[in-house]
Amino acid sequence: MSYVTHLQCVECGARYSEKDDVMLCPACVSRGKAGILDIHYDYTAISRVISRDSLAKDTRRGIWRYMPFLPVDPDAGATHLRVGDTPMYESTSLARAIGLETVYVKDDGLNPTGSLKDRASAVAVSKALERGASMIACASTGNAASSLAGNAASVGLGTCIFVPERAPQGKVAQLLIYGATVVVVEGSYKDAFDLSSQAIEKWGWYNRNAAINPYLVEGKKTVSFEIAEALNWEVPDWVVVAVGDGCTLAGVWKGFKDLKAAGLTKGLPKVAGVQAQGCAPIAEAFRQGVFEIKPWREDTLADSIAVGVPRNPRKALMSLYESGGTVATVSDEEILLAMRLIGQTTGIFAEPAASASVAGLSKLVSEGVIGPGERVVAILTGNGLKDIKNGIRAASEPIRVKPDLWELEEVLREKGFDFEGA
Amino acid sequence: MSYVTHLQCVECGARYSEKDDVMLCPACVSRGKAGILDIHYDYTAISRVISRDSLAKDTRRGIWRYMPFLPVDPDAGATHLRVGDTPMYESTSLARAIGLETVYVKDDGLNPTGSLKDRASAVAVSKALERGASMIACASTGNAASSLAGNAASVGLGTCIFVPERAPQGKVAQLLIYGATVVVVEGSYKDAFDLSSQAIEKWGWYNRNAAINPYLVEGKKTVSFEIAEALNWEVPDWVVVAVGDGCTLAGVWKGFKDLKAAGLTKGLPKVAGVQAQGCAPIAEAFRQGVFEIKPWREDTLADSIAVGVPRNPRKALMSLYESGGTVATVSDEEILLAMRLIGQTTGIFAEPAASASVAGLSKLVSEGVIGPGERVVAILTGNGLKDIKNGIRAASEPIRVKPDLWELEEVLREKGFDFEGA
Repeated sequence: MSYVTHLQCVECGARYSEKDDVMLCPACVSRGKAGILDIHYDYTAISRVISRDSLAKDTRRGIWRYMPFLPVDPDAGATHLRVGDTPMYESTSLARAIGLETVYVKDDGLNPTGSLKDRASAVAVSKALERGASMIACASTGNAASSLAGNAASVGLGTCIFVPERAPQGKVAQLLIYGATVVVVEGSYKDAFDLSSQAIEKWGWYNRNAAINPYLVEGKKTVSFEIAEALNWEVPDWVVVAVGDGCTLAGVWKGFKDLKAAGLTKGLPKVAGVQAQGCAPIAEAFRQGVFEIKPWREDTLADSIAVGVPRNPRKALMSLYESGGTVATVSDEEILLAMRLIGQTTGIFAEPAASASVAGLSKLVSEGVIGPGERVVAILTGNGLKDIKNGIRAASEPIRVKPDLWELEEVLREKGFDFEGA
Repeated sequence: MSYVTHLQCVECGARYSEKDDVMLCPACVSRGKAGILDIHYDYTAISRVISRDSLAKDTRRGIWRYMPFLPVDPDAGATHLRVGDTPMYESTSLARAIGLETVYVKDDGLNPTGSLKDRASAVAVSKALERGASMIACASTGNAASSLAGNAASVGLGTCIFVPERAPQGKVAQLLIYGATVVVVEGSYKDAFDLSSQAIEKWGWYNRNAAINPYLVEGKKTVSFEIAEALNWEVPDWVVVAVGDGCTLAGVWKGFKDLKAAGLTKGLPKVAGVQAQGCAPIAEAFRQGVFEIKPWREDTLADSIAVGVPRNPRKALMSLYESGGTVATVSDEEILLAMRLIGQTTGIFAEPAASASVAGLSKLVSEGVIGPGERVVAILTGNGLKDIKNGIRAASEPIRVKPDLWELEEVLREKGFDFEGA
């Protein structure tokens, strides 16, 4: 059994039961609205089966240790890959570089397929298994797709994945290795999304599109559970994360709200979203204090957050408004700079979208929005190995020499290399 | 304090103390021999401080939970990244595909920088810290280098890394992001190795070359500790791993011998090494039952095991001889096939060298060397995202369509796609 009580439309407030088997609010959809649903739980019941103590004794790894908080029937089978359980580090040198006393980075690039999206996909695949589906589909700029393909492969489910043509080749290769059927759609992310929706409806596949499927935010919220547990249930002052579709930000916020509702934590953090300057529809809406989104061009190298028409702006914006949070926008140059900074100070190679969080954090600190004494967690949502092209752009040039010590010495001296060490 | 008693030359048997501060046996080196040293411990003392029970209660993650087995002074500072603690999965579908009843895959591509080499580098960086070094250097085809750069960055140590020109661009970018000084040597791995040795000697840097530094095998052996612990201290019948320089295979074997010596396990597995057909010097020596290595060309796409002049053949060969193990050789085509097979059955994207283990395992099963009822662990030593070029070679082509459902249906039908799912 799960502890879900009902699904509720974030727009009109209509309630549905799990048995209604809806993914969006039919009433709102028929009026041309999004009709995004939110999952509600019986937190009193949850607090009877899970506590700080029970978790401290629970040796299971990964997201399923938080099962009572998840909309999954444990008997119907959880996925096999170890999703979540990613390391979080305090980095004094990163903190110093950006003007903070305490900063933690959560390396979600160490999920099985290399991104935070594994958390959502694990839940999606489990829901598909629960429903007896044999094919599951989504549109994605990359990470949602590879996480779906990997998690589905591990339990023998078929996947059909729609990607826009700008998706990096490496991410596409990863999908194909997992045995997914990959459809490269000649067009934007929106074109890929729309085609996936049509195919899903026509052939009755299980839908893993994050903005449609309300269960996915539930997977993503586990990152907050891990952050809180790692900090001994003291919530940080701020959690910073890059924003594309808006679902990850919404998941982060939902996680902290759930913990508080079940009595595992006392306070709530503020959440800060970070968007690329070249594609910042959610930042724009936030600054105007509205829920309406204007479509943007997708003009940033951070492909995982290049979403011109976000599918879940409402939940993301509600998270920002409710938490008293904010949004920063950062340039591609600042993102590449942050990639190097993260690598050099923490030993983590984060992809551009992931690095945007630190770029935005740095900006918010320098603007005084985040104070130097506040405790901050930056979530690094994807592995830098996923986007080598931009890794190479961010990196400096290596030194090239013949196998000759004298040539090496000369070249190093020219570069001002410190032979005694860093 | 560490539990190291002495270092012993694997060739002449000469003993050295940790205070002698030698990395190779000076006597053998002066005679033109390799002089590889092996680290010995006081296993009786170790068994008094670490046991199955103490480990079951130890909530620390990663390799430092096995500290008494490691040549590191815990007070001198262990590295920060969470190295090790990688997931191991049983895969029934992979087992079925290769004709086994029970196979486990250990996904060491989920180490912080994406490969098993992190285990060795974490120990190297800790030793460098212990010695007060401020610069650490190595030559590497890639994974050793990135693991060194990442682990050193996390503690603020400088790194100078020598790579041969064929090193994939992505691996080089990763080094640069970590802030390493990268020297691309126009020549082979041997050229890079020789130049690094000259530079290390000239400028007194700490040496992380795996075949020179005897402490690195000690880091690698932690993979065996994790395998044994995950299997409730029942050692598997076989452990299969790809072989380049020979140090990883030697580490795997050392790990199981250490556990037995300290009374944590009863038996020992056989170890099987896998080399590429285009670069199989250790396989050739093993088949002839000798320790002498003939140099090979480096003709395989699996760059992490393309080592024509392995620097540590003796420890690897001793592992094979002592354990009653074997070596398989596999073609590049078989490696690419194994990449797809691993991805489709387990949801893990493994790099070519890592996939070679499963290619070799499959061959050993079909040849009857490994019986269908034997319990096997295949170690996947590196993340497929590290070598996208070969990921793309291994993968099939995606489908390309305009954003049009009818075109999609037509193309899928042409491909014989099953609309009902896998």
